[in-house]
Parts: sequence; C-alpha cells; structure tokens
Amino acid sequence: MSKKRFAVVLSGCGVYDGAEIHEATMALYAIARNGGVYHVFAPDMEQHHVINHLTGAEMPEKRNVLVEAARIARGNAKPLSELRAEEFDALLFPGGFGAAKNLSTWAFDGPSARINPDVERVIADMHNAKKPIGALCIAPVLLARLIKGATVTIGSDPGTAQAIEQVGAKHSVTSHGQVTVDMDNMLFTTPCYMLDATIVDIANGADAVVTEMMRYI
Amino acid sequence: MSKKRFAVVLSGCGVYDGAEIHEATMALYAIARNGGVYHVFAPDMEQHHVINHLTGAEMPEKRNVLVEAARIARGNAKPLSELRAEEFDALLFPGGFGAAKNLSTWAFDGPSARINPDVERVIADMHNAKKPIGALCIAPVLLARLIKGATVTIGSDPGTAQAIEQVGAKHSVTSHGQVTVDMDNMLFTTPCYMLDATIVDIANGADAVVTEMMRYI
Repeated sequence: MSKKRFAVVLSGCGVYDGAEIHEATMALYAIARNGGVYHVFAPDMEQHHVINHLTGAEMPEKRNVLVEAARIARGNAKPLSELRAEEFDALLFPGGFGAAKNLSTWAFDGPSARINPDVERVIADMHNAKKPIGALCIAPVLLARLIKGATVTIGSDPGTAQAIEQVGAKHSVTSHGQVTVDMDNMLFTTPCYMLDATIVDIANGADAVVTEMMRYI
Repeated sequence: MSKKRFAVVLSGCGVYDGAEIHEATMALYAIARNGGVYHVFAPDMEQHHVINHLTGAEMPEKRNVLVEAARIARGNAKPLSELRAEEFDALLFPGGFGAAKNLSTWAFDGPSARINPDVERVIADMHNAKKPIGALCIAPVLLARLIKGATVTIGSDPGTAQAIEQVGAKHSVTSHGQVTVDMDNMLFTTPCYMLDATIVDIANGADAVVTEMMRYI
C-alpha cells in the first residue's frame, strides 16, 4: 500500500505574519509519524506585511510567502499554483496569522474576506473529490468562507465563532486537542493556538486531526 | 517539586542561516512534554547572512538573530546577554547552520572558529556549575571547541568528526535518535539533521537528549 499523500499549505514562517511554526512543524510530524508523506506548498506572493516577532511592530521590509515557508520546509516547498488535487489524498492548513493575512483577508475583512484564488481552487477541487481537508487554529475560517454549510471549530473565541456563523457556516466549541469532524464535507478542524495552549497541546491537536483524516483516505 | 528549567539558545529561524526549525520546535516540545519549562534566548546581533531557503542563494538583506528567533518562540525570546546560569537547570542548543554561522564561525573557520562571547560565557558557567548541556545536529561543535576533552557526536560525517578531534575533543559515531553522553562534562548530544533524517527522527532525537538530561537535574 502506498503512503497517504498530504499537501500542506503554509502561509509564511512565523505566527504574526505567516504560518505558525509549531503548528506547521507538528502537522508535518503528525503526517510522517502516522505513515503519510507530506509536500509543502505556499503562494508565490508578497506577504501582507512583516512583523517583528519580538516587539510586534511592523518592519519596513518585504518578504515572499513561498520563500519564507521554505524555511519550515527545509527548501522543499512548491508554489501553490502547482498543487493538483488529483495528486494528493488530503489537504492540510496549519494556522498562524498568515492564513488570515496572506491566504485570505480575514484578519482585515472578517466575514467578507477575499480568499487567495489558488487557495480557493485547491479547497474546491479537494472538496469536490470528497477528500479530507484539515485546518488548525484560525485556518478553518478559509473552509467556513468557501464551503457552504461547513461545520468547523476555532476553539471558543466568541467573536470569531460569530463571524463564522455570519458566513453561513456552523461553529462548534472545542477545547485542547479536540477535533470537529464535518463528515458531510470531510472537514477536520482543531483550535491549537486559538486557545491559550502549550506546545504539547499543539502536538496533540495536530496529531488528532491527522489521525482522524487518515481514517477516511 | 518545581519544574526543571531549560534555557534554549536559538541562532535565528531557518536551517541555512539560523536555527533549524524542526529541531528547535521538537526541543521545546520535548522539554514541555517531559515536565520542564523552557525559556528561549538568542544573541541580539545581525545574522551572518540571509539565505533564500527555496533557492539556496544569498539575499541582499539583513536580519537580526534574536528578532528571527522570536518567530520560533512566538515572541518570548530574550537577548542571550541576559541568560544567567544560576537561573536554569539545563542549557540546550538546537542545530541549524546558525550555530556555525551566527553563534560561532565554525562554518567558515572549522577548528579555529571563534565563538560568540555570550555563548562562551553561558557554556562555561553551566559547565562550571556541573549542569547538563545538550546540543543537536552541528551545535555540538560549540561544546567541542570550548570544553577541554569533551566527547560529543554529530552523527557520522567524517570531515566534521575529524575537525572535532582536531580541537582536542572526542567524536563518537551515532545513528538516528542515539545520544552521546559525556558524564564527566554533563554533555548530551545527538545528530538530528546531520544525518539524512526524517522529522520523526528529529522528534526522537530531541526527546532522547532531553529525557537523558532530565535524569541529571
């Protein structure tokens, strides 16, 4: 039996302007330790902005989402435009503000967020093929925005939960490591750092999502 | 009993010009899951250079080691100059080229490498206090260079092993997840990505080092 193939979409490298590093790393780890293989993709585009992670201030520089994501992927990252749904068994989005600033405009526009066209395409293609799609932390808003009647979790933040309901999705309250499974849409979501979590919670959450997704591949 | 306190020294954010992200993340995870607490430190200095992790080419920009390390630490990183050995039970260096380019000049000068003065100070202080010091991947060269008669491993790379012997240390050949323990000097080292390793190997190696260090705190 060939290994289960996960496409992992990163949004940069660093929680405040890109992919959350612990979530991304633990997602890759969960895939590998559960017998899958991962391939990392990211949009080849300029980051919305660059945040100094020590001070929280915006820095006067430009960085590319794909080039920074390659730091997490140790060089093995490809443009999201090259992701073909037929080549993968599952799709996974770690979190971090990059999901809401680079993959979409959710951080600025909330329920009326625009979604990166390649993100929209790969989610639609995987969804149409009834393949599992996972998302951690804030990334489930992408699924809520794009998939009619989706059920997702981002933990328990009331504002974000309300915004998710406003786009016609359903929000399910969860705690550390819990996975919300939307069987109709094959969606698997968990809150990770949307809760006040430890790195152990992140590892548990990523593992729980990937384990659950594996059951349907 | 209070939790065991680990100081973790990072050298940036990304394998080719800073701290290796999987090693750093798995080190923090290993500390937390084994009941310890971690505090992240990094030198407040310019990186030697910035590498495009997609292409391997040097980029015409400047980044600060501490500011980039804060990406892995989610903002909770302090200048290495503030690390006081008496406040910690153990010291841990994840790998990545940053250990050989920012924390030292090993990547360029090999056995005659200069070591960052704060790195030298904290290693000397922890060593004098007979507290455990761990290092992953290429970072054990710091211990080889600074601690007379140290025994360490970087895996099995003959060139690096020879250079380690040239500075008066002893190199022990190891494979994935194996830990070389130097009881006389309280040093704990493992090869991680100095071998052709998977992310599962990295998690296992980091956990093995931290578990072993915990026994002597």
